[in-house]
Amino acid sequence: MIKRIGRYSLEFDGVSITGYGSVGGKKESEGPLSENFDKLIYDSYAGRKTYEQAENLFQQEAFELALNRGGKKAEDVDMIFAGDLLNQCIGSSYGLKVYNIPYLGIYGACSTMAEGLILSGISVCSGASRLSACVTSSHFCTAERQYRFPLDYGGQRTPTSQWTVTGSGSCIVEPDSKGLKLRRALIGKIVDYDIADLNNMGAAMAPAAADSIIDFLNDTNTSPEDYDLILTGDLGVVGSKCLYEILGREGIDIKNRHNDCGLMIFDRKTQDVHAGGSGCGCCASVLCSTILPAMENGKYNNILFIATGALMSTTSSQQGGSIPAIAHLVNITK
Amino acid sequence: MIKRIGRYSLEFDGVSITGYGSVGGKKESEGPLSENFDKLIYDSYAGRKTYEQAENLFQQEAFELALNRGGKKAEDVDMIFAGDLLNQCIGSSYGLKVYNIPYLGIYGACSTMAEGLILSGISVCSGASRLSACVTSSHFCTAERQYRFPLDYGGQRTPTSQWTVTGSGSCIVEPDSKGLKLRRALIGKIVDYDIADLNNMGAAMAPAAADSIIDFLNDTNTSPEDYDLILTGDLGVVGSKCLYEILGREGIDIKNRHNDCGLMIFDRKTQDVHAGGSGCGCCASVLCSTILPAMENGKYNNILFIATGALMSTTSSQQGGSIPAIAHLVNITK
Repeated sequence: MIKRIGRYSLEFDGVSITGYGSVGGKKESEGPLSENFDKLIYDSYAGRKTYEQAENLFQQEAFELALNRGGKKAEDVDMIFAGDLLNQCIGSSYGLKVYNIPYLGIYGACSTMAEGLILSGISVCSGASRLSACVTSSHFCTAERQYRFPLDYGGQRTPTSQWTVTGSGSCIVEPDSKGLKLRRALIGKIVDYDIADLNNMGAAMAPAAADSIIDFLNDTNTSPEDYDLILTGDLGVVGSKCLYEILGREGIDIKNRHNDCGLMIFDRKTQDVHAGGSGCGCCASVLCSTILPAMENGKYNNILFIATGALMSTTSSQQGGSIPAIAHLVNITK
Repeated sequence: MIKRIGRYSLEFDGVSITGYGSVGGKKESEGPLSENFDKLIYDSYAGRKTYEQAENLFQQEAFELALNRGGKKAEDVDMIFAGDLLNQCIGSSYGLKVYNIPYLGIYGACSTMAEGLILSGISVCSGASRLSACVTSSHFCTAERQYRFPLDYGGQRTPTSQWTVTGSGSCIVEPDSKGLKLRRALIGKIVDYDIADLNNMGAAMAPAAADSIIDFLNDTNTSPEDYDLILTGDLGVVGSKCLYEILGREGIDIKNRHNDCGLMIFDRKTQDVHAGGSGCGCCASVLCSTILPAMENGKYNNILFIATGALMSTTSSQQGGSIPAIAHLVNITK
């Protein structure tokens, strides 16, 4: 059973991440985390006919790598939580239809990995599932075409913009005392600071990250120093600064514990990604390629993973809408 | 705790639907269920500037009606599951951002209501939530523009096409012995019979409905005669016939227990909807306006609600993709 702590936080009992897998694309292979990925796919089409079909393959590969690492087969999975950035989440539905597994589509934009982990944990704790999986992905070419311009257009990018990661991450969650523990979590609220600049997602999402961090620290009566790492999803350089500022007003300083997946996955000096990486695949692939292995190797024992998502669409933006954001938080321990 | 029955089915213990609300639009007000809706909104814009903003209002109204019926306030809700048909689910995110409730975005296309009910039940059973809510919606004008043609185009509709319902439904789920019981459920698998005709969603979704019904009857060792009503989401007239045919091959006859929300909500003789109604709001609003009240009034004691969803997008269809479908099943008893 799950215990509620304070107003918003959840405490799991005996739920572990027993497998995980990560896949990166060509640009990710040129970045600082290159050697950490389980698999690198250098062809943007991944040998298929469309970028969308390539994204399907990325999800399949990440999921199968997670199964392999956990010593499981697809038929062992009682339910899979999956989503992505594409309209109607076709990165997931077409990617996972081959497995014949009970499927629950989720949409949290770039917060999807944390949403999937939390729902996997809840499903396992309820007895509804003996083994749950979650997977998410993003692809630079599918996302750019959908949200901004087709690549051929060669649109100029602003300094605050971020680069959508081509990658995928997947986790297997079981009621188990082995492996890394899903210890606590917080489901985010939708936060809207009325930011409407589609080229500055970091600023739009930072208030949501701050909201979830503040609530969680309050609920659990802990401070940033209690964690080895406070890892946000894809705030990039602008969003991270905004986060420090908002938290600073509440007397919370996370600077010396904080890192951001969007800042880790690319080298901003040499890779021309402006404010950093983004996309569902950003924090999913960084978590599964770099952070979880580092926890198993003893580098970190107790981390907060806060995946942030921007919940607008091109329609809402064209109609002058602001960018509502959300941040789901997961506390993982060794 | 939830008990697993057979390979796929779940049995809840002490989980009730303690509130529900429904909203319909103008065309729905002219149909056979008109008097059942909690609220009818005759203006397609609902007094707002865009159809999308109108859809936001529909979700807000349905959610608040469900809260009112259950005697609850928004702050009593520990988590809300919501999704819709719009790209990036903006019907839900912009609709629900005003409430400051932990939010979990889901995407199941027209199966969203059943997915939300199941996840609400799981969250409540796990202890993660003391009160969960789910809501979904669709709007003829937002969906037509996004999936087919802007309304002004006046595109000709084929006989197998369905009419997207303008409506919303919402339920409140609690660990409780009062009210209607969420008794059993089955999470659907993605089923793809390689149907690619966007004007025949019923045929694309029928195999998924059949798959879930067959698995559930097998797992629970029950037969159609054990249920007062077997209610599918929005198969319409074509999909319902396909369903009978597929089930017939397995020796299962549901005809004298079956109805379809897409056939109930409109009068096909007078309302020019061709094969019936569809959209997330179709089965959500029929369930919450007509079926749940009929259960409380003793007309039905034990029903199967099977919400079907088509998981394609315009991108996947333009690339020649088939239509993968899913059907989530919920068994509700008095």
